[in-house]
Amino acid sequence: MNIVIDAFGGDNAPLEVIKGSIKAHNDFGVGITLVGDENKIKECAQSNSLDISQLKIKHADSVIEICDDPRQILKEKKDCSMAVGMKMLADGEGDAFVSAGSTGAIVCGALFIVKSLDKKLVKRPALATVLPTAGKPTMLLDSGANLDCKPETLVQFGVMGSAYMQKIMNVDKPRVALANIGAEESKGRDLDKAAYKLLETAPVNFVGNIEARQLPLGDCDVCVADGFSGNLMLKLYEGMGIFFSNELKGIFKKNVKTKLAAAMVMKNIKDFKKKVDYSEYGGAPLLGTAKPVIKAHGSSDAKAFYNAIRQAKLFTETKVIDTMTQALSQIKQEQAE
Amino acid sequence: MNIVIDAFGGDNAPLEVIKGSIKAHNDFGVGITLVGDENKIKECAQSNSLDISQLKIKHADSVIEICDDPRQILKEKKDCSMAVGMKMLADGEGDAFVSAGSTGAIVCGALFIVKSLDKKLVKRPALATVLPTAGKPTMLLDSGANLDCKPETLVQFGVMGSAYMQKIMNVDKPRVALANIGAEESKGRDLDKAAYKLLETAPVNFVGNIEARQLPLGDCDVCVADGFSGNLMLKLYEGMGIFFSNELKGIFKKNVKTKLAAAMVMKNIKDFKKKVDYSEYGGAPLLGTAKPVIKAHGSSDAKAFYNAIRQAKLFTETKVIDTMTQALSQIKQEQAE
Repeated sequence: MNIVIDAFGGDNAPLEVIKGSIKAHNDFGVGITLVGDENKIKECAQSNSLDISQLKIKHADSVIEICDDPRQILKEKKDCSMAVGMKMLADGEGDAFVSAGSTGAIVCGALFIVKSLDKKLVKRPALATVLPTAGKPTMLLDSGANLDCKPETLVQFGVMGSAYMQKIMNVDKPRVALANIGAEESKGRDLDKAAYKLLETAPVNFVGNIEARQLPLGDCDVCVADGFSGNLMLKLYEGMGIFFSNELKGIFKKNVKTKLAAAMVMKNIKDFKKKVDYSEYGGAPLLGTAKPVIKAHGSSDAKAFYNAIRQAKLFTETKVIDTMTQALSQIKQEQAE
Repeated sequence: MNIVIDAFGGDNAPLEVIKGSIKAHNDFGVGITLVGDENKIKECAQSNSLDISQLKIKHADSVIEICDDPRQILKEKKDCSMAVGMKMLADGEGDAFVSAGSTGAIVCGALFIVKSLDKKLVKRPALATVLPTAGKPTMLLDSGANLDCKPETLVQFGVMGSAYMQKIMNVDKPRVALANIGAEESKGRDLDKAAYKLLETAPVNFVGNIEARQLPLGDCDVCVADGFSGNLMLKLYEGMGIFFSNELKGIFKKNVKTKLAAAMVMKNIKDFKKKVDYSEYGGAPLLGTAKPVIKAHGSSDAKAFYNAIRQAKLFTETKVIDTMTQALSQIKQEQAE
């Protein structure tokens, strides 16, 4: 197995990418190809005394920036590390791809370079994010790749998310829910009402609508949403985390007494932080692509890259894309009948 | 001034409604009419030794339940406390209305009984919620009354929210932002892109798009969203609050040492809780109605009703509805030119 890594994606590239890749190679025994400026990668490894002799390097001249137009990856920036890495997947030179670069560019590249698992079954890939909750982690999809969705698209999200949670996250019969403004079937926009009906007969464990209040409480395993709603929820999730974390810090830093109190609960706070730490789950997989593509968080450190590579390995060896394809074909056939 | 209160709306009716109303009458010197079953109101007051001699009572036979179809308020449940209270407003027998009953029924009643401030200017009222943030509170609208919006509707939300925050919450030049998936003008669905353009020339201090991550950090004073997105954000806000609050309780209750730590920061935690306590802000005003209508939280206690009545008084005496009407007329004229 050869996992292709964008060595120049994210805020901490290439050092943290290299560190995470070395550890993942040693622990998991997977082949790893770092994509990016060969000299820079070697210099970075040398100046940090990192042995990259076991990793392959695929040279790429440039890097796509967050501020670039995502579509540039297809034309002006064809030689950027992200585009070159995805091209390797498309050409059969790699089994999975990981990047912490621009989300827009990854979605664009996944769509036009890696392409769909089957264009008749999935038109565009979905970005799936695993969120910490009071219970087990929940997958939210789409979290930003498809702003305008049809009912059929939402059903595809449910089917793909369910397969992923079952095979990669070991959730038995994942509870698939539709993000909506109320629990009743009659709630929501025309899109949501139609998607509800289709999800009822889809080959998933559909548990109905979920109000956003219940999401952090862990009331479902897969939360289906259009990409606009999903992105708002994902980012609000992050923002609320920052808000509460800052307020808590403020409370504990107030005076000598509160600082002492902080020291007394520090271990428990750290346990909680670990529980809500996205880097534990790897990255956000794109679902619906022909081969596994994983978007690591922009601020990923070595541990996050390490976990994203473990996730890419699982994504490949569990053949979850085949499972998704089968389930999606089944729906397609039933619709035709 | 006569403020009409639904005595049978919410989980703690009628006792907490009566308590909040007595205190509000004494402190603010406003006339108050309690709407609901006269005998039950009198019995409740008597058995709790509450003097309601200064309050008026308007008898209503029934109550609309959360589970009833909201539209029943117009036909089968015409005699419920909520419908009777709103009818008083429409007939000029009251100046503002407060209820902690079903949101759907209040929106429906506001639309068909109280009616629009001007049908040519606003087709349907918006539900506006004031959210606590790291900075000053932010108004989120629409938070669930209008699922399908046009660009013009979003602009109306911005104009009405801005007038409200300025006149009632004393915010100078409220920063109006559009909830979106990115900061750039080009981001979002067709709806969002069109609304962005219109907001740029609207008579408000438009500060551009806001990502949901920034909302709890207090980066705007008015956050404009379609009712579907707004409702998801509002409820996720609540859910994240419950999630963190429960986790924090769990941390502090772990053992003797953590319990001691909890005691040491209790005052500071309480200060924070007060800061994020919705009942401090009263209720969620409906904006776009001919007269002030306020939806109090379903679990409102006497303090929340007291604050909602103060808010209703301000809503009336600041004549903010006139301000909204003027601003909306201005937009309408500019569009016609």
